[in-house]
Amino acid sequence: LSNITIAIDAMGGDYGCAVTLPAVVNALQEKPNVQFILVGDRKKIETFFYEKKLEFSERLRIHHAPEIVAMDEPPAQALRFKKNSSMRLAIDLVKEGEADACVSAGNTGALMVTARFVLKTLPGIDRPAICSQWPTMQANKFACILDLGANVDCTPEQLFQFAVMGTVLSAGINGIENPTVALLNIGSEDIKGNEQVKRAAELLEQCSALNYIGFIEGTDIFQAKADVVVCDGFVGNVALKASEGVAKLFRQVLVEEFKNNFLTKMSALMASYVLNRFRKRIDPARYNGATFLGLRGTVIKSHGGTNILGFQTAINQALLQVNNNVPERISAEVERILMAE
Amino acid sequence: LSNITIAIDAMGGDYGCAVTLPAVVNALQEKPNVQFILVGDRKKIETFFYEKKLEFSERLRIHHAPEIVAMDEPPAQALRFKKNSSMRLAIDLVKEGEADACVSAGNTGALMVTARFVLKTLPGIDRPAICSQWPTMQANKFACILDLGANVDCTPEQLFQFAVMGTVLSAGINGIENPTVALLNIGSEDIKGNEQVKRAAELLEQCSALNYIGFIEGTDIFQAKADVVVCDGFVGNVALKASEGVAKLFRQVLVEEFKNNFLTKMSALMASYVLNRFRKRIDPARYNGATFLGLRGTVIKSHGGTNILGFQTAINQALLQVNNNVPERISAEVERILMAE
Repeated sequence: LSNITIAIDAMGGDYGCAVTLPAVVNALQEKPNVQFILVGDRKKIETFFYEKKLEFSERLRIHHAPEIVAMDEPPAQALRFKKNSSMRLAIDLVKEGEADACVSAGNTGALMVTARFVLKTLPGIDRPAICSQWPTMQANKFACILDLGANVDCTPEQLFQFAVMGTVLSAGINGIENPTVALLNIGSEDIKGNEQVKRAAELLEQCSALNYIGFIEGTDIFQAKADVVVCDGFVGNVALKASEGVAKLFRQVLVEEFKNNFLTKMSALMASYVLNRFRKRIDPARYNGATFLGLRGTVIKSHGGTNILGFQTAINQALLQVNNNVPERISAEVERILMAE
Repeated sequence: LSNITIAIDAMGGDYGCAVTLPAVVNALQEKPNVQFILVGDRKKIETFFYEKKLEFSERLRIHHAPEIVAMDEPPAQALRFKKNSSMRLAIDLVKEGEADACVSAGNTGALMVTARFVLKTLPGIDRPAICSQWPTMQANKFACILDLGANVDCTPEQLFQFAVMGTVLSAGINGIENPTVALLNIGSEDIKGNEQVKRAAELLEQCSALNYIGFIEGTDIFQAKADVVVCDGFVGNVALKASEGVAKLFRQVLVEEFKNNFLTKMSALMASYVLNRFRKRIDPARYNGATFLGLRGTVIKSHGGTNILGFQTAINQALLQVNNNVPERISAEVERILMAE
């Protein structure tokens, strides 16, 4: 593995430095060949390292950014008026070739709009898409799902491009040969679905370069029925958020039931043991890090409310994608498919 | 409570009589003022009662139906060619006033198309919607969500009508005064969302008769942020199925972890105790029974793969709606709102 540089939006997310900096310090220990540029308020970052007695490293440098994009700031406003924000400068470093990727837990809309404006989309890609990996019933199998909210309405051609990008990511990151691709729909019968989905299905059926397997329903995502699941950003975002909602509900009910019923030391111990094992497999922090596919550069979006482990996972996603040359591979694949037609 | 008659599609669902008939027998014991018409193959139903030694009752009668709609039969074909199916005849009984409601675990699309054709929509309602109640973090609070798949594309006016219908259901069934209504969207900021959702928001903001509170995201459904959640059928169906998928995944992982780690008798006992309590709060059987709102009659759709408890829950939903005169109230509310404008 070559030497990789990651730009970190140190101020982004619900907790800012309190999450991003410890995650970077942990990542430094785990990954000897990576260096980080911490983009944010120099004084705050330095104070944090000093107060928390975190060790500074040769593989760290601070890039001062005087502004912060607020979590609820309108994206267009952030793009226009926050040209010296930690988010913007982190993306600029990717554009200028100083960093191989950037990771931010900041405002999703602002990150998307800014990344698209600064980095531009790859040739043959109309719009970037947000993609992340979801756990399934099969312990080591993941579903790449996109778009998760970058585009509320999508043309059939855009859905087709998402399929290409998801295939590249799934093959590269998960090492899957010829990943299966499905369109998210409300029934597996051909007659169901809206016009865009039906027409996207026609495009995918005609493309021999992709391993298209047809429609799947929401339940099927978690049953590992496809390696890549394609949908528009409205549908994908609702599916993502509803899934998160159910996950939270389950965790809460489970904890309540344990608390209500097991008061002895022994049972509390057992409960925490099971809950920990359970969390290890389901914990959203372990699946954190969505990627903006289709850009000329790697941008990873961490969940805004994630913890240190979660931000580390997002950093690891960035490393995986850089090591796999995901943007370059998407370019090559788009060209190959368009040539074949 | 007056005497109520419910028509049961005895043959519908993945398990047919094996689930529907025991559920009816249980319901007879619980509800002394209800009678049932079992619609289906007379011989099969009689044989089932005989073989399972189930007691027949004065409050039961069989209405013979020689045909069955298959679970994967195209809806239009079922409507056209299965005029003597258990599903069709059960709906016909509602139309003719012989039954106050019907309950089916059969093919959703066929049930919707047939119910709409036979019963027709209420005045002022363009399209019926599928609505069900979802559990939330607040133990006794539910979210009425619609549409869950009857309409893939919806106009803003249809979304508005869904809001009216959901309000009536939530007020009637859950006894909530002035239920809060939200539109499902991908962000709570006004700028987000597609055109239909934005225009539906304008309509809802102008309507003082409804308690509209704005946009919510998928996660918020489970946090009880609104009593009524409105979306188009494509989005609603994906949210429903994704939620079911996560729920299944959680249950599986939880059971696996318990099995892997607790082998002693004592711990197995404790585990099953917690799991049972957990199931009681989360079990989909306890939230089974979606309703087709907007029709001139009450039709309840049970999940096809539900168990006896689940089908009983669906029967109870039918009783609640009949007791609350839901269709009549929707009519009255639509008229009131249109008059007020």
